[in-house]
Amino acid sequence: MNRLELGVCYYPEQWDRSLWREDAQRMAEMGLDWVRIAEFTWGLIEPERGVFHWDWLDEVIDILGEAGLRVMMSTPTAAPPKWLIDKHPEILPVGPDGRVRGFGSRRHYCFSSDVYLAEACRIATEYARRYGQNPYVHAWQIDNEYNDHDTVLSYSKTARDGFRRWLSDCYGSIEVLNDTWGTVFWGSLYSSFDQIELPNELVASPNPTHALDFARFSSDRVRLFNRAQVNVLRQYSPGRDITHNFMAGSFEFDHHAVAADLDIVGFDSYPLGNLLGSTLSEDEKRRYLRTGAPDYQGFHCDLYRSQGKGRMWVLEQQPGPVDWAEKNPSPVDGMVRLWTWAAYAHGAQAVMFFRWRQARFAQEQYHTALLRSDGSPDQAAVELAQVAAERENLPDAPRERAHVAILLDYESIWAADILPHDDTFPNARIIREWYAGLRTFGVDLDFVGPQDDLNEYILIVIPQSMIVSSELAAKLRGSGAKLLIGARAGSKTPDMHTPLNLAPGELADLTGVTVRRAESLPELAQETVRFQDGATYDFTGWREIIETNETVVASFCSAYRDGSPAIVRSDRAIYLAMIPRGPLLHTILSDALSWANIPVTDCEPDLRITRRGGLGFAFNFGATGLSLPSDGTQGYLVGGSEIPPYGVSIWQDR
Amino acid sequence: MNRLELGVCYYPEQWDRSLWREDAQRMAEMGLDWVRIAEFTWGLIEPERGVFHWDWLDEVIDILGEAGLRVMMSTPTAAPPKWLIDKHPEILPVGPDGRVRGFGSRRHYCFSSDVYLAEACRIATEYARRYGQNPYVHAWQIDNEYNDHDTVLSYSKTARDGFRRWLSDCYGSIEVLNDTWGTVFWGSLYSSFDQIELPNELVASPNPTHALDFARFSSDRVRLFNRAQVNVLRQYSPGRDITHNFMAGSFEFDHHAVAADLDIVGFDSYPLGNLLGSTLSEDEKRRYLRTGAPDYQGFHCDLYRSQGKGRMWVLEQQPGPVDWAEKNPSPVDGMVRLWTWAAYAHGAQAVMFFRWRQARFAQEQYHTALLRSDGSPDQAAVELAQVAAERENLPDAPRERAHVAILLDYESIWAADILPHDDTFPNARIIREWYAGLRTFGVDLDFVGPQDDLNEYILIVIPQSMIVSSELAAKLRGSGAKLLIGARAGSKTPDMHTPLNLAPGELADLTGVTVRRAESLPELAQETVRFQDGATYDFTGWREIIETNETVVASFCSAYRDGSPAIVRSDRAIYLAMIPRGPLLHTILSDALSWANIPVTDCEPDLRITRRGGLGFAFNFGATGLSLPSDGTQGYLVGGSEIPPYGVSIWQDR
Amino acid sequence: MNRLELGVCYYPEQWDRSLWREDAQRMAEMGLDWVRIAEFTWGLIEPERGVFHWDWLDEVIDILGEAGLRVMMSTPTAAPPKWLIDKHPEILPVGPDGRVRGFGSRRHYCFSSDVYLAEACRIATEYARRYGQNPYVHAWQIDNEYNDHDTVLSYSKTARDGFRRWLSDCYGSIEVLNDTWGTVFWGSLYSSFDQIELPNELVASPNPTHALDFARFSSDRVRLFNRAQVNVLRQYSPGRDITHNFMAGSFEFDHHAVAADLDIVGFDSYPLGNLLGSTLSEDEKRRYLRTGAPDYQGFHCDLYRSQGKGRMWVLEQQPGPVDWAEKNPSPVDGMVRLWTWAAYAHGAQAVMFFRWRQARFAQEQYHTALLRSDGSPDQAAVELAQVAAERENLPDAPRERAHVAILLDYESIWAADILPHDDTFPNARIIREWYAGLRTFGVDLDFVGPQDDLNEYILIVIPQSMIVSSELAAKLRGSGAKLLIGARAGSKTPDMHTPLNLAPGELADLTGVTVRRAESLPELAQETVRFQDGATYDFTGWREIIETNETVVASFCSAYRDGSPAIVRSDRAIYLAMIPRGPLLHTILSDALSWANIPVTDCEPDLRITRRGGLGFAFNFGATGLSLPSDGTQGYLVGGSEIPPYGVSIWQDR
Repeated sequence: MNRLELGVCYYPEQWDRSLWREDAQRMAEMGLDWVRIAEFTWGLIEPERGVFHWDWLDEVIDILGEAGLRVMMSTPTAAPPKWLIDKHPEILPVGPDGRVRGFGSRRHYCFSSDVYLAEACRIATEYARRYGQNPYVHAWQIDNEYNDHDTVLSYSKTARDGFRRWLSDCYGSIEVLNDTWGTVFWGSLYSSFDQIELPNELVASPNPTHALDFARFSSDRVRLFNRAQVNVLRQYSPGRDITHNFMAGSFEFDHHAVAADLDIVGFDSYPLGNLLGSTLSEDEKRRYLRTGAPDYQGFHCDLYRSQGKGRMWVLEQQPGPVDWAEKNPSPVDGMVRLWTWAAYAHGAQAVMFFRWRQARFAQEQYHTALLRSDGSPDQAAVELAQVAAERENLPDAPRERAHVAILLDYESIWAADILPHDDTFPNARIIREWYAGLRTFGVDLDFVGPQDDLNEYILIVIPQSMIVSSELAAKLRGSGAKLLIGARAGSKTPDMHTPLNLAPGELADLTGVTVRRAESLPELAQETVRFQDGATYDFTGWREIIETNETVVASFCSAYRDGSPAIVRSDRAIYLAMIPRGPLLHTILSDALSWANIPVTDCEPDLRITRRGGLGFAFNFGATGLSLPSDGTQGYLVGGSEIPPYGVSIWQDR
Repeated sequence: MNRLELGVCYYPEQWDRSLWREDAQRMAEMGLDWVRIAEFTWGLIEPERGVFHWDWLDEVIDILGEAGLRVMMSTPTAAPPKWLIDKHPEILPVGPDGRVRGFGSRRHYCFSSDVYLAEACRIATEYARRYGQNPYVHAWQIDNEYNDHDTVLSYSKTARDGFRRWLSDCYGSIEVLNDTWGTVFWGSLYSSFDQIELPNELVASPNPTHALDFARFSSDRVRLFNRAQVNVLRQYSPGRDITHNFMAGSFEFDHHAVAADLDIVGFDSYPLGNLLGSTLSEDEKRRYLRTGAPDYQGFHCDLYRSQGKGRMWVLEQQPGPVDWAEKNPSPVDGMVRLWTWAAYAHGAQAVMFFRWRQARFAQEQYHTALLRSDGSPDQAAVELAQVAAERENLPDAPRERAHVAILLDYESIWAADILPHDDTFPNARIIREWYAGLRTFGVDLDFVGPQDDLNEYILIVIPQSMIVSSELAAKLRGSGAKLLIGARAGSKTPDMHTPLNLAPGELADLTGVTVRRAESLPELAQETVRFQDGATYDFTGWREIIETNETVVASFCSAYRDGSPAIVRSDRAIYLAMIPRGPLLHTILSDALSWANIPVTDCEPDLRITRRGGLGFAFNFGATGLSLPSDGTQGYLVGGSEIPPYGVSIWQDR
Repeated sequence: MNRLELGVCYYPEQWDRSLWREDAQRMAEMGLDWVRIAEFTWGLIEPERGVFHWDWLDEVIDILGEAGLRVMMSTPTAAPPKWLIDKHPEILPVGPDGRVRGFGSRRHYCFSSDVYLAEACRIATEYARRYGQNPYVHAWQIDNEYNDHDTVLSYSKTARDGFRRWLSDCYGSIEVLNDTWGTVFWGSLYSSFDQIELPNELVASPNPTHALDFARFSSDRVRLFNRAQVNVLRQYSPGRDITHNFMAGSFEFDHHAVAADLDIVGFDSYPLGNLLGSTLSEDEKRRYLRTGAPDYQGFHCDLYRSQGKGRMWVLEQQPGPVDWAEKNPSPVDGMVRLWTWAAYAHGAQAVMFFRWRQARFAQEQYHTALLRSDGSPDQAAVELAQVAAERENLPDAPRERAHVAILLDYESIWAADILPHDDTFPNARIIREWYAGLRTFGVDLDFVGPQDDLNEYILIVIPQSMIVSSELAAKLRGSGAKLLIGARAGSKTPDMHTPLNLAPGELADLTGVTVRRAESLPELAQETVRFQDGATYDFTGWREIIETNETVVASFCSAYRDGSPAIVRSDRAIYLAMIPRGPLLHTILSDALSWANIPVTDCEPDLRITRRGGLGFAFNFGATGLSLPSDGTQGYLVGGSEIPPYGVSIWQDR
């Protein structure tokens, strides 16, 4: 089923009962298919332990269902009620500063708490028993944005105890842990798992394997928490799709692992909300202030579509200014439509808007919605109606597997955060810039993780994979794909050790390279990469001194080791001894695509083109009209070959 | 009585007894009328509980009084002694980080502590009994700078318990609190007042009504603390004036409310100390490095004179470099005189210098004084003598009520800090810039609060009043004044809800405006306001999309909603849909003054002119001599029509 | 013995036993004389209390010794084992935020803990008994880098209790403490030493004498901790040299005092690691990114050589990129050799490289070494071999006492940090810039402390000595040396009081100056110093208004007190009323050297020249070859008169 479905997040509990029926009617008339409800309702439904007030929610579901809307019910575990916290204060999360974070907002729980896990399953069971077979309830969302507000890594006593058990299960004996962590370093050997503390509030930096294991443990607790609720829902609400709303730009837990337990991978899309805090330049922030970065929607849709094996929904779509970024500008008129079509083009099955009506009280009053708080329609409602009409013109178009994949490994991101070499390593920026660089060539992309099937890709790009296991290396070797490999790849074993053969460790044979030294340069010092044709480009930051017998594509110009290889190409792999950005990255990606025989369309900076099934899509993120490259199209279904500012064109591609 | 009185803050306990008599003699000879003493003497007077050492203080008072000086006695509650803290450690304040702030400096108490309230009244009673009828003691200062060092908001268990009681008194039932706060949002309903915690150390942002109520409660505790001591002093020292020294530029508690219990509203004036940390531009900081901002003295004198119903004193006047700012430059010679006359011109009844002799030990050794620590006179003593001579030439001149008032509402400032929309809202900067903008037109100003009589003003300007109650709106309506209303006004109800009719809520009829959306722009993006005559001005930050049937004076030029109204004028009000600064603000103020028929004198940037009774005053904050605009003056009493750098001219105005 | 000795830091416990013998062989062949071992081995040697595993360490020592290497054994007290922390958690240090820093890295102890002091002596005794008479063990290092990771000032309950006892010992009666601290200020008198808390987590700033005494106490605990282990080693390992590795650029404890108990003063030299975080300008950081600041090695060698009475070793020399700075660039090829020769030229007896082989696991994997982690030689090994060969050409050359000394007083640095006047006082920058300024004139320098013999110097420069005791003033007076005295000198008594005669207090007679006022200017405001010849220079920051009858060499141009003296010269002293930098500092130093008849060689910015015994040394820190000033040399032993980029020349000077 590939028709674009539309939905909205609705909080009937915040509004007078008298509005519910009219709301439902207006939703249906607007063309909405889905309504997500109830994710912060625990305190209302169960005001004291074991006492349930279901009536109002029963009524809401009936009203919505009778209006022809499908309900996505939520488990309410993102906000445990006060009476539960009062009874079990150990549920509260603890920051890296060792201080408890209290009740009074949301997400005030520690993933490591078995008490809370049991309570979460208990309330999920109650919800699932009540609504699991309700004919209007067609899907479930579990909890809300697991890694919002930085609680994935919680430094509670509960977490410490759980971490000890997890380590014991993982290592079996404390001697193995001592060996694996290398506690002989700084003489910090343990004689029992009960001696192990959490890696915060230390005098100096923690043992990196200790820190990485804590990140793994913490991620695993998220997976367990999610899976426990999945199991409840599978039992009491069979046949309904289960999802969770991941956040954009977040890497705190292993999303691949959590996604594996879901039917649909959802995410929350805030293109402007995530702009000013991003790693974009000042110029880009100014340019895309009211549109969002051109690759924001594509990046996250491609990532989560890949994790969802094709089943990906936008569970919250920004409708106008949000209330939580540094500054909160409006999107230009037309952007809500553009974002919605871009999500669809990148594989979304449904796009749901956050939220129906702007709040009149409490925390999110400045977050816009489809309606203003007085019930009048805001701009997003207008654009939603336009999309609802336009979708009727489109045929079925399943998004197909791409020829080019980006390898994204959450553990490698944690590893580089834990052992950055210097003060920081720009994991997120590297991945985002490689994605954007490839997309400006019109190349469609999948994301893959180390656990995924890598066969059938022509080119796999590896922006940052600091940890490469022998299994992953074997998969890459066996895939037959050509590889574009960023610096640091394979530089640590899964135990956070330096490989015996030095970096790139398991990738040595594929690349033909040995890294003899890594260094890093500050922003105030730029160095130069020179290609064989004499072209030169600046870079800064990470740099490697490598040895190779393979083809040296470009070399460094430097006061230090002038002429040492910067880019090396073997039969199977291009290896980069620095982190390219801007024009250097553009050239490297262009060369790699050409080397792998991937066809490209060089797009103007504000234009993005992608394909879904037999359809072509173009999006103009700029203030100037553009002409589409002539494309042998078979006719436009939306827009035309001249694409106005902030416009969308859709055509029959073949 | 309108003769300028002069005084000094004196710490005899820090100096050898042998110096006291000579000090008093020198003070009298210098022309000082008042000496403030004893505000940090608790630990000396009562070295252990119930044991009092009054002798030395008795002697000091006698010496001062016999020299012809009037004594302002202080209650010593700003520094509770160690034995009291040891007995009741719960007195100590707690920071927003949940950590106790210990003994070892000053202000180490929590306003919420009933134990401390009782102890403060006990010691105040002792002081009042001892000196309340002393013939040399003519006035009292309570405590010292209530909101110095950020303890007004203290997050102690005591504060939590008091807050619960305060809420219970305020709301009566927990259901009313739940409704008012909107705790249905994020499902954080309470079933008892005893469940309520303080709004710090949360996972995400607190409920804004929760936070605003905590600000109200905290402010109310300051009021109660002050009033309790006022009551003691009224009982034991009848007929003496009671004051407290407010700080400049601080809004943490409701100064209107505290001022209502005082006879004299005092404040501490540090024009250079408050410069570098202010919101002035780098250029302004450089330009006024050694003079202070030209409107510093006027702003605070006007504000606190208004709160004091005409009775306002400068209780601490900067005499030279202080020791607590980012950097501590000297004022140019002449500035101490200029500041003193400026205070008088803006209504001060007395100016007291901080302090008599520069400290030789402990915390404030680098804070200059009238005398150096070796007893030699420093520059302030020279200038004080000049002022003392000059005042003899002046006739009585009571400061009169102004025609133009600025509305300043402390709750609105807290509200915008709690719900800034984005990362910050520049409350203080807006108020300061509007004040300064009006003053450069030579307009004399009063400040009014929501509780004040608003009649008889011709123009009321409202830079930031996010919360507008129906009572305030009715007062504004009834006042007959014309209104200049800044963005966000009336955008929240007193409960921190969005008005049912959207912003500007209760001001809708006066303005003829409805705010359909608010957004905010980062510094890196400037947008434009265009007037009907084609003049354009840049702005950034807050912007509103409004609908109106009234006259559109200027519109926005923008990629988003180009042409939407920026300035709207109705019969009674001009409403601004953005926050103007610099030339845009100047134009708006000029237009508003002209619309309200307020006569203006366009002053050069470094010149300030004001009037007190029949006297005119001019102050030159610049390094270049200036000619006064010819003014029909009836003769100069100080200076002349040519006003030298850093000079003062005073003339008979009518 | 003045032959350059070479050594390495070795961690055999981190490598397979099978590598040890080969490692020892390679070390010997490389020309190494010394091997430092065992400083983090407590947890390995004593895995549970009283159970010792000595075998492996016995074997290591035998292997090293048999290969002809001399062993520097370490006491392992920088990393107490987990079982000890579990038994005595009160050993852990506490930060200024009041939070305990836990086990899991290193230096997790509080110097104030008597329990830990006893445990440290116990384990030192065990090590000393085992190896004190071992024929291969020729020297001892105690602990490791005392002030790494900011634990010298620890705010534990243990520290508080110790501080109370220390104060009681120091003051005898609480009345004396009250008088000395001036607790009458802010009424914070104490009635018992048990009332005294630590000066952290206060509402406002602490009493400065309180804070200074806590710094003194904390420093004294370091001294005691070190001395206790010295005593153990003297008893069980007589005749062996004892050292400790001080850090570069650190002033947290009184290094003079600790050094007095050592035979050899060692330090750890990281010229690139300490570059980017230093107070150098952006341009200098870019220029010296791959060389380190030209005066880094000289400064620290001169400082610690002076403290070691000529016996100074570099105990850790940077071999390539480190892993702990903001960014970690490689030195250019040749710099490891240059640094080694520079250390020798400035008096080092031995240079030991950190470390033998790059770590394969745990915290310091990115820290380079002589060998890479796969055992292959890295660049430092190559350059070390070159140095080992070159040293054979040199005759004995003891570093001689200099004619010019810099006074460096740790207490004055703490004092200015505690009472900076404004937000900060650039202690370290001032001292570094004066040193560098003098060195660019080719002047060789000693450092002296207040306790040192000051006779026989021709010129003593005093960049920052805020506290000048009468004893120090008498020594300076008696020395006969000419003095160049920076601003603030003598401005506080040892009790942190303002001198009765104002600043410069005890230096009044030598300088002929009285400081009437101090002020400070922000970076955004520059003022001017004008010399008698009309030359003018900019400065900012600290400025003093002084009175004098002595010769005014230069005056201030300012809107404030234009023409007041900026530089004053008496018979014996030049006094500066501001903090000169750049060209102004250069001129002042030039004039002072000329006034004192010190011969100078004006060096190009990247060239440094120094002398050791009869040898001359030149170092080129730049990318361009330079010609040495003709020098009447008697022939080159290394290099020649043309000195290539990053080159070294050594010649027979006389």
